[in-house]
Amino acid sequence: MIAPVAPLRRLCIIGVGLIGGSLARALRQAGQVDEVIGCGRGLANLERAVELGVIDRFETDPAQAVVGATMVLLAVPLGAMEQIMAAIAPALEPECIVTDGGSAKASVEYAARSQLGSALPRFVPGHPIAGTENSGVEASFPDLYRGRKVILTPLEETDPEALASVRTMWEACGARVSCMSVAHHDEVLAATSHMPHVLAFALVDTLSRWGDRDEIFAYAAGGFRDFTRIASSDPLMWRDICLANHESVVAALERYTDDLMRMTEAVRQRDGDALEHAFRNARDARERFLAMLEI
Amino acid sequence: MIAPVAPLRRLCIIGVGLIGGSLARALRQAGQVDEVIGCGRGLANLERAVELGVIDRFETDPAQAVVGATMVLLAVPLGAMEQIMAAIAPALEPECIVTDGGSAKASVEYAARSQLGSALPRFVPGHPIAGTENSGVEASFPDLYRGRKVILTPLEETDPEALASVRTMWEACGARVSCMSVAHHDEVLAATSHMPHVLAFALVDTLSRWGDRDEIFAYAAGGFRDFTRIASSDPLMWRDICLANHESVVAALERYTDDLMRMTEAVRQRDGDALEHAFRNARDARERFLAMLEI
Repeated sequence: MIAPVAPLRRLCIIGVGLIGGSLARALRQAGQVDEVIGCGRGLANLERAVELGVIDRFETDPAQAVVGATMVLLAVPLGAMEQIMAAIAPALEPECIVTDGGSAKASVEYAARSQLGSALPRFVPGHPIAGTENSGVEASFPDLYRGRKVILTPLEETDPEALASVRTMWEACGARVSCMSVAHHDEVLAATSHMPHVLAFALVDTLSRWGDRDEIFAYAAGGFRDFTRIASSDPLMWRDICLANHESVVAALERYTDDLMRMTEAVRQRDGDALEHAFRNARDARERFLAMLEI
Repeated sequence: MIAPVAPLRRLCIIGVGLIGGSLARALRQAGQVDEVIGCGRGLANLERAVELGVIDRFETDPAQAVVGATMVLLAVPLGAMEQIMAAIAPALEPECIVTDGGSAKASVEYAARSQLGSALPRFVPGHPIAGTENSGVEASFPDLYRGRKVILTPLEETDPEALASVRTMWEACGARVSCMSVAHHDEVLAATSHMPHVLAFALVDTLSRWGDRDEIFAYAAGGFRDFTRIASSDPLMWRDICLANHESVVAALERYTDDLMRMTEAVRQRDGDALEHAFRNARDARERFLAMLEI
């Protein structure tokens, strides 16, 4: 159990979109934050965030934004993490805690080690496993994290108090927090999220370059809409995730491709027993998985 | 436009599950059938179908079931088509029309040519693009086909009147009927339905054999549930579809695997431009596809 702590005095959110905006809304609703400062590149989005009451005010310069902050959330694309860390490091208050919401952690660890200097022990890498295919502050809502998992991947140097504060912050949003190593996070997420996104993007990409494209899509059945939903995700965000976690993503894709080629061979050989066995195993595994989620 | 026709006098449904049961319910609701005879292997399911009012009575012998029928729907697994056709051929009334609901058509054409003899011109191969991941007569409902596509793949020999009658029957259920060749049907459906099912089965199969399986599934995010829904489909039915349409399914899988390996190579090379381009193309294609469905 984590002891109750005082609300965050000043939270600075760099990147006021679905992830950052929903955190601010949830903490405000729970009375767990006094003041929220936003920072980002799009002035219209920041102005809208103030109108919506998600943030109190904003800065467009990250170094200005973190002045006086007690907690900073980096909710920017993975490709921008290192640059933002370099910008804020000299301006961080000595006691300020920094965390992030990046979907891959090795590249974030690398950036933090390169850029945060003496602030490294108060940096807690994190990943809320939540989101929709929509993005931007308009899409944010206070219950995004309720019942969802947040993974924290503390480094060897991470200050236990900083870790506890970040955990408490996410728990105040209704999330279930767990900890694991950076490497393990990146392998697990490559398998369950990053690789499946690549598969869905590849499927729609393949079909879109089929001979009679419109007809191909016209006869796509109901299951197709579900199966390809994740292919409507933000291309830039997923490009960044694939680049940031390229080793684990390639390993997962290779493993999948091997299995798929084996299954293709079973179809070619008309090996009904092998197909039935694999399909039945998949169905049973999915049902066990759904039962587990409902516990 | 098809001229209005009299209701079917006696419809015989061989295989009283989701597909056959829903057709019977829809035609009854539309007042387009006088009598429905069921046939199948499971006595309990047939008795339940009578209780539910889906069929009027049943036979367990297909040859007995088709006696006096004016229309026969074969809604059995693809692997059972040829055997059922052999059994009913000698018992069909001279004017009786036969159609089917199989998800692949070349193997059904082959079975019909081998077994139906003089009844071949009154056989109309068909495929309703509808279904849920549930099966059995309990899962059937009259609106299953409303607004959905039904593809008919008439053979060179098919009697135009038989074709018109089958078209009218499906239109009475609210379906939109179109015609294409057997070969084209099998290629299009391999791309949009059969291959995606194999991909989903393969993904869950791969993950279920990952090192720490429970943990892998525990961190699967929301998109995973959608993405793998079709992996909860009936393993035997999908085995049969893969076997029946093996050439087109293998061709589609090979095409997909080539694209996936190219995408994997882009991740390995950290080629952000190639990834962004493919992901953006996929997202845009899916959005065009959804817009097309809503027209």
